[in-house]
Amino acid sequence: MRINFSAALAALLLTLCATAAAADEDGYDLWLRYRPLDRAAQANVQSQARSIVLPGASSPTTQAAVAELQRGLAGMLGKAPAPASRIADGALLLATPARLPELAAAASPLRAELATLGNEGYLLRQTRVQGHNVTLIAANSDIGLLYGAYAWLRDAGTGAKLEASSAPKLSLRLLNHWDNLDRTVERGYSGQSIWDWWALPDIKDQRYTDYARANASLGINGTVLNNVNSKPEVMTAPFIAKAAAVADVLRPYGIKVYLSARFSTPLELKETSTADPLSPEVRAWWQRKADEIYKAIPDFGGFLVKANSEGQPGPQDYHRTHADGANMLAAAVAPHKGIVMWRAFVYAPKGAHLADDRARQAYEEFKPLDGTFAANVLVQVKNGAIDFQPREPFHPLFGAMPKTPLMMEFQITKEYLGYSTDMAYLGTLFEETLESDTKTAAGAVANTLSGMAGVANIGSDRNWAGSQFDQSNWYAFGRMAWNPQAKARDIAVEWAALTFGPDKRVVPPIVDMMMLSRETVVNYMTPLGLHHIMGTSHHFGPAPWVDNLERPDWNPVYYHRASRDGIGFDRTTKGSNALEQYAPEIARQYADPKTTPQQYLLWFHHLPWDYAMPSGRTLWAELLTRYDQGLADARALHARWVALKPLIDARRYTEEEQRLTRQVNNAILWRDACIAYFQSVSGLALPPGVQAPAHPLDYYKSLSYPYAPGRG
Amino acid sequence: MRINFSAALAALLLTLCATAAAADEDGYDLWLRYRPLDRAAQANVQSQARSIVLPGASSPTTQAAVAELQRGLAGMLGKAPAPASRIADGALLLATPARLPELAAAASPLRAELATLGNEGYLLRQTRVQGHNVTLIAANSDIGLLYGAYAWLRDAGTGAKLEASSAPKLSLRLLNHWDNLDRTVERGYSGQSIWDWWALPDIKDQRYTDYARANASLGINGTVLNNVNSKPEVMTAPFIAKAAAVADVLRPYGIKVYLSARFSTPLELKETSTADPLSPEVRAWWQRKADEIYKAIPDFGGFLVKANSEGQPGPQDYHRTHADGANMLAAAVAPHKGIVMWRAFVYAPKGAHLADDRARQAYEEFKPLDGTFAANVLVQVKNGAIDFQPREPFHPLFGAMPKTPLMMEFQITKEYLGYSTDMAYLGTLFEETLESDTKTAAGAVANTLSGMAGVANIGSDRNWAGSQFDQSNWYAFGRMAWNPQAKARDIAVEWAALTFGPDKRVVPPIVDMMMLSRETVVNYMTPLGLHHIMGTSHHFGPAPWVDNLERPDWNPVYYHRASRDGIGFDRTTKGSNALEQYAPEIARQYADPKTTPQQYLLWFHHLPWDYAMPSGRTLWAELLTRYDQGLADARALHARWVALKPLIDARRYTEEEQRLTRQVNNAILWRDACIAYFQSVSGLALPPGVQAPAHPLDYYKSLSYPYAPGRG
Repeated sequence: MRINFSAALAALLLTLCATAAAADEDGYDLWLRYRPLDRAAQANVQSQARSIVLPGASSPTTQAAVAELQRGLAGMLGKAPAPASRIADGALLLATPARLPELAAAASPLRAELATLGNEGYLLRQTRVQGHNVTLIAANSDIGLLYGAYAWLRDAGTGAKLEASSAPKLSLRLLNHWDNLDRTVERGYSGQSIWDWWALPDIKDQRYTDYARANASLGINGTVLNNVNSKPEVMTAPFIAKAAAVADVLRPYGIKVYLSARFSTPLELKETSTADPLSPEVRAWWQRKADEIYKAIPDFGGFLVKANSEGQPGPQDYHRTHADGANMLAAAVAPHKGIVMWRAFVYAPKGAHLADDRARQAYEEFKPLDGTFAANVLVQVKNGAIDFQPREPFHPLFGAMPKTPLMMEFQITKEYLGYSTDMAYLGTLFEETLESDTKTAAGAVANTLSGMAGVANIGSDRNWAGSQFDQSNWYAFGRMAWNPQAKARDIAVEWAALTFGPDKRVVPPIVDMMMLSRETVVNYMTPLGLHHIMGTSHHFGPAPWVDNLERPDWNPVYYHRASRDGIGFDRTTKGSNALEQYAPEIARQYADPKTTPQQYLLWFHHLPWDYAMPSGRTLWAELLTRYDQGLADARALHARWVALKPLIDARRYTEEEQRLTRQVNNAILWRDACIAYFQSVSGLALPPGVQAPAHPLDYYKSLSYPYAPGRG
Repeated sequence: MRINFSAALAALLLTLCATAAAADEDGYDLWLRYRPLDRAAQANVQSQARSIVLPGASSPTTQAAVAELQRGLAGMLGKAPAPASRIADGALLLATPARLPELAAAASPLRAELATLGNEGYLLRQTRVQGHNVTLIAANSDIGLLYGAYAWLRDAGTGAKLEASSAPKLSLRLLNHWDNLDRTVERGYSGQSIWDWWALPDIKDQRYTDYARANASLGINGTVLNNVNSKPEVMTAPFIAKAAAVADVLRPYGIKVYLSARFSTPLELKETSTADPLSPEVRAWWQRKADEIYKAIPDFGGFLVKANSEGQPGPQDYHRTHADGANMLAAAVAPHKGIVMWRAFVYAPKGAHLADDRARQAYEEFKPLDGTFAANVLVQVKNGAIDFQPREPFHPLFGAMPKTPLMMEFQITKEYLGYSTDMAYLGTLFEETLESDTKTAAGAVANTLSGMAGVANIGSDRNWAGSQFDQSNWYAFGRMAWNPQAKARDIAVEWAALTFGPDKRVVPPIVDMMMLSRETVVNYMTPLGLHHIMGTSHHFGPAPWVDNLERPDWNPVYYHRASRDGIGFDRTTKGSNALEQYAPEIARQYADPKTTPQQYLLWFHHLPWDYAMPSGRTLWAELLTRYDQGLADARALHARWVALKPLIDARRYTEEEQRLTRQVNNAILWRDACIAYFQSVSGLALPPGVQAPAHPLDYYKSLSYPYAPGRG
């Protein structure tokens, strides 16, 4: 009762406010704002939800679905119908075949459609049931009903048509939290970890429930609670109890809990004498540990492992393979139907032989292991072969391991794209990778891509994501994990309407800003296929000059290879030949700079400064043009937002205006520093009309960013 | 307009809600909730505020005052009067002598009263002005008007009488943030630092303004932004610009910004060759640095310094005195009217001679320096001689430095009292210290106590303080800094009414809980004057057995000195004679265990286990009784809260219920572990009726708390 009443009053409040300026919002409600609809939309929605009917006994999941429908209707309409027990005209009916025998009947026209939707799919349909006109949310399971409820609310809130059916194309749709047990977050730019490990398990923050709601609304069905750079303590009884408390909150929303496992855990806890994956002692320890975890969390998802990468322990410490390590853990969780996600982000350990090209390494290590992994192991591969750069070609492992199910790992948090201050809608990045993947490695990928993992940008900040617009990246990830063929623009339209209201004066300009934003960042940071030229460690700001780090492949100069003669990393047969790792049609296309997409040009080719670009400009002039374009577009983003001021509530307007102002300054910094540096290398003059950097190169080199966030 | 309208609607919402269960609150509004009054109170308040009149030009400070009055009235009454330019019957009139000549007139009866109130005092009076009945908020300055406005709102919200005058008894009322530049907070249990150094100066969170409002409402007039364990970078241009952005937000609210200075800053920044305070190079550097800071922050407050303590650099590194160091910095800020607060929390540096008793050390170092400090130096002394223990006798330096202005440093954050999970209202701790101080060292203290500093418990948590009840400690600190003679119970009544509403069924039981709470913690942690027996480093949980730390005075066994023959630290002439540092009347009283308050018994005396207590019990039996009392009272706190369930909104009820459940478990842990340990030492049996600890001593010794919060 309390929820309904408050929500109804909140709706009243907002209706009364509608004539005044928009009320301030802090972003906590994410895309589940449920603000009052206009009169016509209200009438339409109301006609479909005069009552809410759930045949059969309620479950925690259907309770969540009904509560969300009531919350949403109270917000959008000003009042919500109470649950009713009998089907009547205008009912919003939630039903599974088990709950409503009509759906299971051979004569039912929906039976066949439902059969195609699997355990998690749903359909929304205006139809007749028991002689009444109803709006039906149907699914094969309660979780399908919850997903359907969110879909129905989303459609109601955006004015989209209220008739659809949908099922997820990938079975694993996970967030990866790089959250440490001390609540710092590696590469986190939105406050602390939302997991208050200290307060758990006794104290369960309301935020955990709202986190579950937001994720369920997107269809995310799993979350790895802790950083891939994991600690042994997470596998001890106190932390298992804490994880179990989180799992209890998330369970009704269809979200399984997973943990990142440190490979050397039993050894470091001094409970075994080795961490060798073939040691019976070690195998028995993990088996017992899995049993202990499943006792506390019966639907525990499994382990995510970063092994033999960047100093993390792993099976190679014992001269075993990644498959030996993964399969040992897989055997421990298999009796409980758990899985192991084994990350392919590896590069040669310190002191070992370095591949000539770091981009080659994961493929070289993992491709030979295809077919050797246990059935419940997935290999989790980053979207690109280096590391979450503003733009990378897709990772060559996609399509190269036909016998191994793969996860694609995207980074939602913007480690390399301006943290949570710069606007960069990543829907276009996700789309670009998923599209190129589909186009180029065809069947093999489609058959083996089993899930998507997104490194979360969620933190304790009131707005969850560090900025209002960074919420869209969480949203886009979730929507694309459900449907990897979804279009970034469609998702942006949906998100903008849900987040700022379905106002035709607001949504299109915001969508245009979003669609422009990531390309803007690419242009002022790393145009034309440049990559990994950012500051050391914190990864903020330009530092293409860095050449003194311990490992060659930590240095920006390793990647851009700029010199008096030209710029770019030659990955053709004349160079590292990383191209050979791609399917032949791709390798052929990218072997020639003329047929290589310009956006990847310097990723694959080292070219002279006077190389003739399709624009008619030299490469040098083109590079300068791109940097200028990035800055101009950053300024345009700010100007477009300022033009929206009368239509946005003051709080969110001001928050984003301050960030876009900062972004312009960041763009100037990147443009000027990179131009100053590359000019010092090329020795070329700036063409007429190109503004010289504001400071000499040494100034940019002298800048430092102590206490930058995100270093966990 | 936006604020008024939203506030009015919020009030309407709440009025409509009044018949239902209380609406959920998350605590963000602190004690400035301004919820609707009952009808009679509304009529009374409304009659005094039919209009708001501010003669003369508005200033940022009067704008803040008028906005707060409008916000408060909109909330409490459902609507707020607009500012009016003419005085009329029923006006709420804000005036200074400069704004309203009548107040300055020789004939004004208020002139003399105002003259006694200083720059920051105010008076509230129902009187006649220009022939109209008005409610007058009068002060000598705009900041006095702001303080008066908050006082008037506080009275209106609690139903207290609306007529008073008040002026602060201490001129410096400061928060000390132990906040690091990476947003971790040393001894912080409420999220990250509220200062988002990375986002500053461009991005200024709304929270900074609400922080200023909350502090101004208590009369807090200064804040040290960064940890006393400071870093050199805070004195560099980028961080000065960030501090200046914060100062700009706080300035209208009468709050000055201060910074903690690391003594070796110029040396560590490689801008001098030494940090010797007598070096002309060093003196010139700090002078230039002060000039640079004051250029950015014209009303910068000054420096707080922790020197030669716990590894921090200081003047003793150069064989100079604390006075040499403090006076050097004081000379740098003196031309700008800045001050230096020099902390007296020192104990012998590693490797140096250890005093026989750490409690003696600050006095031994600082007493001889009395009279040698520059006029703009204050010595900041913790409330007790060890370190913010659940209970300590007041620090002997109070009363011992008649020629030096002193600050008293309290810890609002509960490093030693159960973090932000256990309920412990510190008003009683503050009162106990301030009372004993006043009683015992009389004139000397009153004449030299110039300020109070509270180590803040404020963080990024939505509720600011880590729990709803921890807000009361911020509140009590502020109210006592304004008036050190204020009573803890009165403050609790005020806070509870503002925080949970002036409901007679709610306020008295909550106040009773608060008044019981800190004694409860003392009893289950450190009864009878025990101290410093907590876990190493994180300071959580019991660890009286620890005896293996590098320095003797880091070990709990150093403090409790329990052995087969008895327990307690002998600080009489037979022991360390720390008592000699107190005024003779105190030293005499505490020299005899029979006349020593029981709460300090084992602080000053080592007594046999069979020592006869006034209760008739042996010391051993009394100790057990206290531990049992602490646990019983923790259970009582929980039970009393549960009884209030129907009267508290669900969210705040649940949050606190979970914490009180945890507190009972913490109390069991402390009781059982301490009894198990002290029994192992005393070798004595438990008397009949005393429950044995649930586990053997080794179990308690085996517990560890990895990743405990607050280690910054």
